[in-house]
Amino acid sequence: MSNMVFWRKFFKNIGMSNRVNTSDSISLSQDVLLMEHSGSKGDVDNIYLSTSKDVNLYELEQLCDAVGWVRRPLRKVKIAIDHSFVIICLFCKNKERRQLIGFARATSDTVFNATIWDVVVHPDFQGRGLGKALMDQLVFHLRGANISTITLFADPQVVSFYRNLGFITDPDGVKGMFWYPR
Amino acid sequence: MSNMVFWRKFFKNIGMSNRVNTSDSISLSQDVLLMEHSGSKGDVDNIYLSTSKDVNLYELEQLCDAVGWVRRPLRKVKIAIDHSFVIICLFCKNKERRQLIGFARATSDTVFNATIWDVVVHPDFQGRGLGKALMDQLVFHLRGANISTITLFADPQVVSFYRNLGFITDPDGVKGMFWYPR
Repeated sequence: MSNMVFWRKFFKNIGMSNRVNTSDSISLSQDVLLMEHSGSKGDVDNIYLSTSKDVNLYELEQLCDAVGWVRRPLRKVKIAIDHSFVIICLFCKNKERRQLIGFARATSDTVFNATIWDVVVHPDFQGRGLGKALMDQLVFHLRGANISTITLFADPQVVSFYRNLGFITDPDGVKGMFWYPR
Repeated sequence: MSNMVFWRKFFKNIGMSNRVNTSDSISLSQDVLLMEHSGSKGDVDNIYLSTSKDVNLYELEQLCDAVGWVRRPLRKVKIAIDHSFVIICLFCKNKERRQLIGFARATSDTVFNATIWDVVVHPDFQGRGLGKALMDQLVFHLRGANISTITLFADPQVVSFYRNLGFITDPDGVKGMFWYPR
């Protein structure tokens, strides 16, 4: 937990000054160390965070495959990333490899409202607080851009996860709705 | 109603060929006649539709004032419009004036998901099916761009309005959630 406090302070200190604000997105120029994690064999995994939109689409597909999501054309995934306001990637780096283990993104009008989509943590890395770290970072970036309305649509099994992060359902009776062809 | 059928066909015919697809938005080059409406004094109001982002911000503020919305800085409203994927404006034109009477917009990643915000029809023009026409157009544009997930957050008093347009609440238990500072 002290690690978490460390990186949060660290990120707060460097995050805003280091960021490059492009036309409709926020991006960091390089990966930021999020936390160190000791593996079962005594080896150390370093978890890094990146907000670069230069995502390896094949790696992202593998990550989404790992949680059983329906595949989407990579060409479209690239367009969606390019037209998202914030992208957060988590990587696990050790001596052998650098693996994409977490992803989330948000669309936004860049000033008032944002909607979070495609939040995923690799099953091998779930239960370590990485989903919370991912979401905290996404909210941190959106709040840093003064977005006041941060929204998402949660599947039933993750409503309590988001509630623990400060999201609430149906405030003042406001209902999330989806259009379906009649 | 025959007018509605007419403009819908008309719009379908001209809409796609006439549209200018910029980097992250869809826009028509000119206003399209949506319907004719006979006023109480026998005069005729023509209702026009525009998807141009070149919105008069003072007119939009007047429209939002008319329904009692909290004022927002015009500088930010402009940025939000510029970063929306689709903008729909409704105008009433008669011999004397051209008045902005309806507005709606959607943010989107331009390929998968969209979220609709700021749907408003001037109180003097409510009850004529213009809210439905506005939303039909917005959905039509989003579907034309192959957006599969069209979402919105509805205040309690307008849930049934959106339900009648084909929106459903909490499909498969998916909940709309809002972030609030803890």
